[in-house]
Amino acid sequence: MKGWLQPEPTGWPILVENALQEDIGTGDLTAACFGIGSTVDFFIEAQADGVVCGVGLAAAILESGQIKILATDGDKVSAGTPLISGPLEVRSALACERTVLNFLMHLSGVASLTNRFVETTAGTRARIIDTRKTIPGLRSLQKYAVRCGGGTNHRMGLYDAAMIKDNHILACGSITAAVTRLREAISHMAKIEVECENLDQVAEAVALSVDVVMLDNMPVAMMREAVERFPKAIFEASGGVNLDTVGAIAQTGVHFISVGALTHSAPALPIHMEFR
Amino acid sequence: MKGWLQPEPTGWPILVENALQEDIGTGDLTAACFGIGSTVDFFIEAQADGVVCGVGLAAAILESGQIKILATDGDKVSAGTPLISGPLEVRSALACERTVLNFLMHLSGVASLTNRFVETTAGTRARIIDTRKTIPGLRSLQKYAVRCGGGTNHRMGLYDAAMIKDNHILACGSITAAVTRLREAISHMAKIEVECENLDQVAEAVALSVDVVMLDNMPVAMMREAVERFPKAIFEASGGVNLDTVGAIAQTGVHFISVGALTHSAPALPIHMEFR
Amino acid sequence: MKGWLQPEPTGWPILVENALQEDIGTGDLTAACFGIGSTVDFFIEAQADGVVCGVGLAAAILESGQIKILATDGDKVSAGTPLISGPLEVRSALACERTVLNFLMHLSGVASLTNRFVETTAGTRARIIDTRKTIPGLRSLQKYAVRCGGGTNHRMGLYDAAMIKDNHILACGSITAAVTRLREAISHMAKIEVECENLDQVAEAVALSVDVVMLDNMPVAMMREAVERFPKAIFEASGGVNLDTVGAIAQTGVHFISVGALTHSAPALPIHMEFR
Amino acid sequence: MKGWLQPEPTGWPILVENALQEDIGTGDLTAACFGIGSTVDFFIEAQADGVVCGVGLAAAILESGQIKILATDGDKVSAGTPLISGPLEVRSALACERTVLNFLMHLSGVASLTNRFVETTAGTRARIIDTRKTIPGLRSLQKYAVRCGGGTNHRMGLYDAAMIKDNHILACGSITAAVTRLREAISHMAKIEVECENLDQVAEAVALSVDVVMLDNMPVAMMREAVERFPKAIFEASGGVNLDTVGAIAQTGVHFISVGALTHSAPALPIHMEFR
Amino acid sequence: MKGWLQPEPTGWPILVENALQEDIGTGDLTAACFGIGSTVDFFIEAQADGVVCGVGLAAAILESGQIKILATDGDKVSAGTPLISGPLEVRSALACERTVLNFLMHLSGVASLTNRFVETTAGTRARIIDTRKTIPGLRSLQKYAVRCGGGTNHRMGLYDAAMIKDNHILACGSITAAVTRLREAISHMAKIEVECENLDQVAEAVALSVDVVMLDNMPVAMMREAVERFPKAIFEASGGVNLDTVGAIAQTGVHFISVGALTHSAPALPIHMEFR
Amino acid sequence: MKGWLQPEPTGWPILVENALQEDIGTGDLTAACFGIGSTVDFFIEAQADGVVCGVGLAAAILESGQIKILATDGDKVSAGTPLISGPLEVRSALACERTVLNFLMHLSGVASLTNRFVETTAGTRARIIDTRKTIPGLRSLQKYAVRCGGGTNHRMGLYDAAMIKDNHILACGSITAAVTRLREAISHMAKIEVECENLDQVAEAVALSVDVVMLDNMPVAMMREAVERFPKAIFEASGGVNLDTVGAIAQTGVHFISVGALTHSAPALPIHMEFR
Repeated sequence: MKGWLQPEPTGWPILVENALQEDIGTGDLTAACFGIGSTVDFFIEAQADGVVCGVGLAAAILESGQIKILATDGDKVSAGTPLISGPLEVRSALACERTVLNFLMHLSGVASLTNRFVETTAGTRARIIDTRKTIPGLRSLQKYAVRCGGGTNHRMGLYDAAMIKDNHILACGSITAAVTRLREAISHMAKIEVECENLDQVAEAVALSVDVVMLDNMPVAMMREAVERFPKAIFEASGGVNLDTVGAIAQTGVHFISVGALTHSAPALPIHMEFR
Repeated sequence: MKGWLQPEPTGWPILVENALQEDIGTGDLTAACFGIGSTVDFFIEAQADGVVCGVGLAAAILESGQIKILATDGDKVSAGTPLISGPLEVRSALACERTVLNFLMHLSGVASLTNRFVETTAGTRARIIDTRKTIPGLRSLQKYAVRCGGGTNHRMGLYDAAMIKDNHILACGSITAAVTRLREAISHMAKIEVECENLDQVAEAVALSVDVVMLDNMPVAMMREAVERFPKAIFEASGGVNLDTVGAIAQTGVHFISVGALTHSAPALPIHMEFR
Repeated sequence: MKGWLQPEPTGWPILVENALQEDIGTGDLTAACFGIGSTVDFFIEAQADGVVCGVGLAAAILESGQIKILATDGDKVSAGTPLISGPLEVRSALACERTVLNFLMHLSGVASLTNRFVETTAGTRARIIDTRKTIPGLRSLQKYAVRCGGGTNHRMGLYDAAMIKDNHILACGSITAAVTRLREAISHMAKIEVECENLDQVAEAVALSVDVVMLDNMPVAMMREAVERFPKAIFEASGGVNLDTVGAIAQTGVHFISVGALTHSAPALPIHMEFR
Repeated sequence: MKGWLQPEPTGWPILVENALQEDIGTGDLTAACFGIGSTVDFFIEAQADGVVCGVGLAAAILESGQIKILATDGDKVSAGTPLISGPLEVRSALACERTVLNFLMHLSGVASLTNRFVETTAGTRARIIDTRKTIPGLRSLQKYAVRCGGGTNHRMGLYDAAMIKDNHILACGSITAAVTRLREAISHMAKIEVECENLDQVAEAVALSVDVVMLDNMPVAMMREAVERFPKAIFEASGGVNLDTVGAIAQTGVHFISVGALTHSAPALPIHMEFR
Repeated sequence: MKGWLQPEPTGWPILVENALQEDIGTGDLTAACFGIGSTVDFFIEAQADGVVCGVGLAAAILESGQIKILATDGDKVSAGTPLISGPLEVRSALACERTVLNFLMHLSGVASLTNRFVETTAGTRARIIDTRKTIPGLRSLQKYAVRCGGGTNHRMGLYDAAMIKDNHILACGSITAAVTRLREAISHMAKIEVECENLDQVAEAVALSVDVVMLDNMPVAMMREAVERFPKAIFEASGGVNLDTVGAIAQTGVHFISVGALTHSAPALPIHMEFR
Repeated sequence: MKGWLQPEPTGWPILVENALQEDIGTGDLTAACFGIGSTVDFFIEAQADGVVCGVGLAAAILESGQIKILATDGDKVSAGTPLISGPLEVRSALACERTVLNFLMHLSGVASLTNRFVETTAGTRARIIDTRKTIPGLRSLQKYAVRCGGGTNHRMGLYDAAMIKDNHILACGSITAAVTRLREAISHMAKIEVECENLDQVAEAVALSVDVVMLDNMPVAMMREAVERFPKAIFEASGGVNLDTVGAIAQTGVHFISVGALTHSAPALPIHMEFR
């Protein structure tokens, strides 16, 4: 059952194995500088402010019973905050150092960016959510990082919820036709969201009691009107959201605000590993 | 032999397959809105200025003999530049749309950021190179994107070249001892680079005729002195390089400047797919 | 994109490959009786009444451009109904004959059993649904067979919807506490069902507006009372349902009736392949 | 060497891993109801009479040093017989509960059905054997379950023994020609069985000293005659055998009786897991 | 069904893929010398006398519809015999050249050595057979090469036939006890061979009608005596057989002679690829 | 990190797993002779003189905490030298015996042959190196065996160094053009070797300061002249080298001598496993 029940999403061990293989290949040429079995004291520390993510995963890669875990995923850290420390076999430490840091820096980058959006909308009922605009292969881990940063997850993929967009509406003839067809075709356990571009569409979707109504690229005023006219509906604001605009959007009363940049454009959080 | 001989690096088909599986899972629930076999005219276009990367890969995912490829990896594009167009089976198009865009947006992001560094150092002999600070699982593709952006690749991983850092020097006693040991232990076909923090170390490395001398986190003036004192050596500048500092570093005469941000912090280039 | 977009669920090609390997191993010893390349005319036909499932998959395994597909998944067939016919290379035909039939017979068995439940409940609003009690490795295909038989799918697994059972309630203290915790912790796109053993629990779940209320192992009279008292709730009847009891359960007005036997105890539908 | 040397057939760990992944996917949504690390006392027990199979495999999936194994594969059990008990981490227990039960219920179903055939033919020399009509992907485990139920295995697949059927005879011209060709072409370590439809064919096969003679879909009287006329030959009865007919067939003196239903139509044995 | 039904053993495509990956890795650095798409005329030819094996496999790797296959596996060739020729895309040709030749040279080496043993025993009834002393990962292909060289295959592995050796006899108490136990435990479709070190053991094995009797490391005279005393038994001679001793062993009348060197020590047959 | 940091090359565990599966398949039929859990004392010993390789790998396959490792890879051994001994579970021991020996015998064969070349050139500066003419799938392990035998590794494959051959020169027009193009196209961390057939080519390559100059199939006198005329260049002798010719080649002063036979034609070193 290894790996299945970590607080981290399942499936990451194979990503780690691939990343190690990608870096180590047929072996670390420079390792010949070290005697086999000699050990070293190391520590991993943040080099900037942010929210850390990937500590448990990093500890699992380092795989030494003697290391100390000094931070928890979701913790706010600042430059100099130690994350992990302890003794390691030198060759082993250097062989996985870069892989450990690449995961930590990227996931902490996602968590940190998410957290900035979450803090910018504090005091509203809006929750920051992710999208399917993820780095290929890393979706589950990135969505975990979003949760660590205080965000909430949208659907995982095309398979666990339905999203009716303009093309689906066009193909079926109307929102009503599309929703009706889906309710016949798919599991009753799958939620349905409808992407709306104007208030008429919103009204039609709300009348069908769809689970979530997406307000797609709407002006803030139109979003506010939608929320006010349909107080029982659940709304997601979407489209070009950034740190400058997210505050005003949250003030409209929408329940969710989705931000593609959380997962496609988060800069890495600087983190390094040092030997004492 | 499919996949082995693309201009793109080998091995990407498995990354695409994993990315599709990650998004599609047990199937696209919303696909039920479309009749099986109905087709649609689509186009993919850039939504901002940059250098495009991943067009061939995107075309391979779309796998339709009728699509037109309108751009080549490495091309400079601007908002509105079409990349691919043609007819596609609708269900198929929507099932791979997001995966195609996720690859295109990320790889074009890397190529575009690389290109900004390359243009900022134009007129010098310095070449912009990448590092091992890559997104786990995507190293080969990211390094391909760096080449598309006009950059050059550093080693692929721990296995195809040796890099002697402070820990290796400490373990062996001196740069000389470390280089000597490696020359006995590893293939004569592998190059050796030595990370130097001061001019004494540079002098020792140069005396050993190592293949590349890294000037690690040195002040610009010290870099210039190294280049001048050892005109036959090959130098790589490294450490905290950004678009503000790279110009001055290039002026020192170093041959290579490595930039971790190319692969760990490149924002996505906005690209979308539309149906006519 | 092969395999991703079939009407069949994604992922079946690897199941087919494993099944072929399991049967063929290092090669068909008896194949030496046939000259390489000689062909034969074959047909596959049902040997009993039922609903067929797996025809497209069988055709894909046979992989010959010249075969004729004579039935569609979901068709009612009777003894003697032809499913596929045409010419095949003999060695190839015999190497995959048993694998083709093993898939066809099992999936058609599931579809046929499902259909008997569906027909037994005709005229009611109840829909027959499957469970997670599936044959290891075949869940997606079995759930596809359930759809072919006229049934509807429950959740695919632990990951695409939440189901609060007695243990969850015990751990959290109450249904209310469990639902509240889940609504904070998981995606807003995931539905929540609560397993209820009595009408008090039903009332509590309905008050929380959970997406589906399971009536677990309840007497028929209690089920009817639940449906009548809470006309806006969605109900699933569950527990020891069989062809003798399903009719009365459907008459209670529940929306869904889940039947484990559909996927864990469906007898194979006899189907054979003959050469002319 | 883990997994290779279990009394169970090799290769099952990958089946378990696939089954867990199929059920757990990106994670158990409802697990959020439990604190990480809290444990629970559980027991697994049979809910009906039968022969149990899969206990060792179930224990391996549960992977806790503290569980007690209370039954052995091949044991006869009745409703209420405990199979495994002990303390488990709650989240882990729930994540693998259904997979454990799906294996146990299916394999015990196969073992139990086999055992009914074995008991029905007790007192004769006939041994009950399986066929290649197995559930795709589970052949080795199903054949292990047949052994646990008191049955014997036929060949594993096309690769470990030869079976000459009507098509092979047709292609070669005669049974004699087919056997002769195979004896030249394949390993001397592989046995050859010939499928016979009448006594002339039986006589020809016996004259060739083939290893096993299959009496295919013959009337009971003809089977008896074959056994009496050729007392040194080894006979397998095959074709539409069920619990009503198997007794009479066994009385003919055949050595083996093959039953496809053992592996393609065995109903699951009810087994559940409870928490105290 | 690709790969399953080749005259070559199943499973080789994955070996080819691994071999290509092992050689090509992240890409052929020197390929940059060639324009993409330029073609070249090539030919593959033997550089020494022997029996060729792997031509079909080589053609499949080269995967060009335009190449001509000029030899068949099992053909005797001499220095200068062309095997394959035709036009190829240059980059593709160079990327797989070494892999193609590595397979061809090794398999032809095995076939050629086998053929020398076969020719040395011509005129006797003895057939040359292989063992389980194979190069890890290549057993099926090596056994195919043995067949191409005119040899016959022993069992594929531990799973498709039983071999009772001294340790098995010791553990069970006697040959009789070991054979009896196996006949109860394993499939009736599996043959049983017994390894005998003296004539008493041979007598015991023959009395049990075991399928094959191995004469292990016996003097030639003792082998002859065994064959003469038990004219109905099937004998395999084994132990330190080489080209100098195999002739005399074959003259004893044994049916099979097993030679480990066929697969563990066959020198490569020189073969090269040239461009015109 | 298991497997990544062994002194042996990374990636061997999957080779071992494949080799075990290839031999054991669905299980060791003859194992039924032994009670589950009974143990035995065994030892593995060399049966001829040579250099041993694969001891650590063998110990890892045997996976018993109680075995004693009595030799180290690279040790010279003679007939009777014990390599590993200790107690093992019998079924487990027999299931992996042949796989363990197949690896040990092959790798020790490569190490031993390499060592004969190394000893034959003792006293010169020439180092014996391997080629890409390896057994498919075993390249990394074979190259490790070459190191154990005292040899040095050439490039691992097409990806970690560039080798300009006649076809590359032809395609680019000249050695100079080819080297120039590569220096633009590939990483500055990759070495470039040029294959030369005469002294003019050598002169051109040396003038370009290529990293290594290959003297391909040259007469010994020409090799000596090359070495004398270009004292600062690094030379590799290549082409049809054997134990009779290698001494004279080494006397020319070349730095490296590559020998394909090390990896494509090394006979196995006899090694066996015995139970006490």
